[in-house]
Amino acid sequence: MADVRSISGGVTAPAGFRAAGLHCGIKASGKPDLSLLVSDAPATAAGVFTLNLAKAAPVLLCQEFLGASNGTARAIVTNSGCANACTGPQGMADAREMARLTAEAVGCPVEHALVASTGVIGVNLKMDRLRAGIPQAVAALAADGGAMAARAIMTTDPFPKEFAVEVVTEVGTFRVGGMAKGSGMIEPRMATMLGYLTTDAAVDPATLQRALTDACRYTFNAITVDGEPSTNDCVFALANGASGVVIDEGQYTALFDGFRAVAHELALGIVRGGEGATKLVAITASDAASEADAWMAARAIANSLLVKTAIHGGDPNWGRLVAAAGRSGARFVLEGARVRIGSLVLFEDGRPFDELAPQAADYLTGKDLDIEVGLGTGGGHAATVWTCDLSKEYVTINAEYRT
Amino acid sequence: MADVRSISGGVTAPAGFRAAGLHCGIKASGKPDLSLLVSDAPATAAGVFTLNLAKAAPVLLCQEFLGASNGTARAIVTNSGCANACTGPQGMADAREMARLTAEAVGCPVEHALVASTGVIGVNLKMDRLRAGIPQAVAALAADGGAMAARAIMTTDPFPKEFAVEVVTEVGTFRVGGMAKGSGMIEPRMATMLGYLTTDAAVDPATLQRALTDACRYTFNAITVDGEPSTNDCVFALANGASGVVIDEGQYTALFDGFRAVAHELALGIVRGGEGATKLVAITASDAASEADAWMAARAIANSLLVKTAIHGGDPNWGRLVAAAGRSGARFVLEGARVRIGSLVLFEDGRPFDELAPQAADYLTGKDLDIEVGLGTGGGHAATVWTCDLSKEYVTINAEYRT
Repeated sequence: MADVRSISGGVTAPAGFRAAGLHCGIKASGKPDLSLLVSDAPATAAGVFTLNLAKAAPVLLCQEFLGASNGTARAIVTNSGCANACTGPQGMADAREMARLTAEAVGCPVEHALVASTGVIGVNLKMDRLRAGIPQAVAALAADGGAMAARAIMTTDPFPKEFAVEVVTEVGTFRVGGMAKGSGMIEPRMATMLGYLTTDAAVDPATLQRALTDACRYTFNAITVDGEPSTNDCVFALANGASGVVIDEGQYTALFDGFRAVAHELALGIVRGGEGATKLVAITASDAASEADAWMAARAIANSLLVKTAIHGGDPNWGRLVAAAGRSGARFVLEGARVRIGSLVLFEDGRPFDELAPQAADYLTGKDLDIEVGLGTGGGHAATVWTCDLSKEYVTINAEYRT
Repeated sequence: MADVRSISGGVTAPAGFRAAGLHCGIKASGKPDLSLLVSDAPATAAGVFTLNLAKAAPVLLCQEFLGASNGTARAIVTNSGCANACTGPQGMADAREMARLTAEAVGCPVEHALVASTGVIGVNLKMDRLRAGIPQAVAALAADGGAMAARAIMTTDPFPKEFAVEVVTEVGTFRVGGMAKGSGMIEPRMATMLGYLTTDAAVDPATLQRALTDACRYTFNAITVDGEPSTNDCVFALANGASGVVIDEGQYTALFDGFRAVAHELALGIVRGGEGATKLVAITASDAASEADAWMAARAIANSLLVKTAIHGGDPNWGRLVAAAGRSGARFVLEGARVRIGSLVLFEDGRPFDELAPQAADYLTGKDLDIEVGLGTGGGHAATVWTCDLSKEYVTINAEYRT
């Protein structure tokens, strides 16, 4: 059994990774807007990308590069403040130039320089800023640069998200680090916004892709802020082998555990920092007829505006939980349904327990909430989705995002 | 060709209908909470009901009654302030007693008294108030009582919704009247909240059901406030034949036109009066590969929080429209996509026309907006869904609904 322990730092916590973050001039605010992550040696690389059919140029380019390189990369360059999405042939040319500039400065083949962008859709990149900024970022690369890199990928995020663990196995110790951003346009059906995992274990590309996909399923793909999968969602993984630990079939679970631990913290950080969010809420749909049904119901409840506003108001309005489950598309039997808020069962066997409402309201004043809806089918399937409350601040942020 | 003209009034505009609305004591506010609609003679009756699997007791009862009566009814009694949903066997017994009290006071078989409830989920009806109130409502029935009945079905609705038309055909003139309520928990995939259509045409039950279902498809089923189909959604139609006009196959279109005209106004009224709404927005998805795709894309855009908040802020953020279409599940080809806001095309042939953004922002200050997203598939299919903007007021209303 592998032992997974949290350690300080983020993407540069594993050996052999350097990073940098700086302001190159894309954001008018003067905040950091260019982030660079580099592996000293060529790393195996994997990616999970948005299923949105309006894919941004950097997403299409990364898919092309990972195919061409057979899952190898040295660098990931990211700008914030501009999504380079819906920008046509010019956007594709700009993403390609961003990769070329990075590859030249780092000294690697162009297809080993992955590219990501996040920010406003439909605006072209300021390439003159990137032409000046990318060499500066390469010059600033540092083994303790993970924190600055995590800041430079932020848009409306209220705080940076980074996390790292050390995985102790019988064949040696390796590390997994990560950073993520994401505040709005967050939806659970795919890799959500930008996530980066690094490890100094040695992993072949197919195993790395499998560990990344499996870890995303219960982490980045199990969160929602507003039910909006974006045009730019990506999660990357880089493995450079610097720890000397080789992941074979027997060590797969250790790698998965490490990836999942880091991705879990980053994903929950995205929800905690969701636009206007004041509470993190784990929504579990249980007693479902199938696993797909459990996910469908959990997502419907987690995205329900009425559920999210009730939680914001601290109102134990379990009827809205039942109504959302009932219209989710999942099998649902009202007579057998059950609602639990914290440790309090408010609805069971077809009847409410409203005498517990004051206690439930008290529980809902907390910041970290746990809610379960049993679908009443007699099935044994369950799924958990993490969501946040919906506040007036979300409306303020999104009604005024560009203006 | 039938000629459809709007006239004043609502459910009692057609001959042979009387209605009443009063406060019986379910709402603590003292506002009207009991509504009664009665046809002087037995009417043919049809209903369209929520697809939510957590159906409220009155919904289940109406489905039972319409089956038992072969589509015949004399009365529809409605209380507001309590949904009688998720109330178990007691809720079903209460709905049945509400029907019995109405049938006794009106003088008809119990299955000719349809029942509807709207308000908070999971609370039992105050039956003592209904036992006293229903006979009072029957005593108050009046041929000009439609306006009071429309008030008494309201919950968070900011204004009552009623409308009526006169349909002039070669075989005579008949009228269609209607009322509706609905403010939150409004979603387009079914009959939305409570709607009532009356006509003094003579219509057999099967034809009445067909006209109601067809009319709902483009009206009550094509609106959204918050993507939340409720536990209590119903639309009823009553036809009493008092005009002497008989609807046969040749007159079906005249009936459909009349139903659609009234249902359209009522449905748009629900959106205009949506919780926190300040704008009515027609969202058309065009150039879709199939009609189902057009509906899927239009609904995804109309329910997108980012689209709704951008419209609230008057921000012509067409990128959010493209992103919502791209993740809707409908076929979507970015290169051929097109976004029109009012008469302004902001995205076409893969490139933005941001020089028009100031004009588009000016257009978005209006209250009645028209937006189209072409999906770029070369298909000829289109669908329109009506939605509203998302404001801080929606959060306030729903965070404080019960508290």
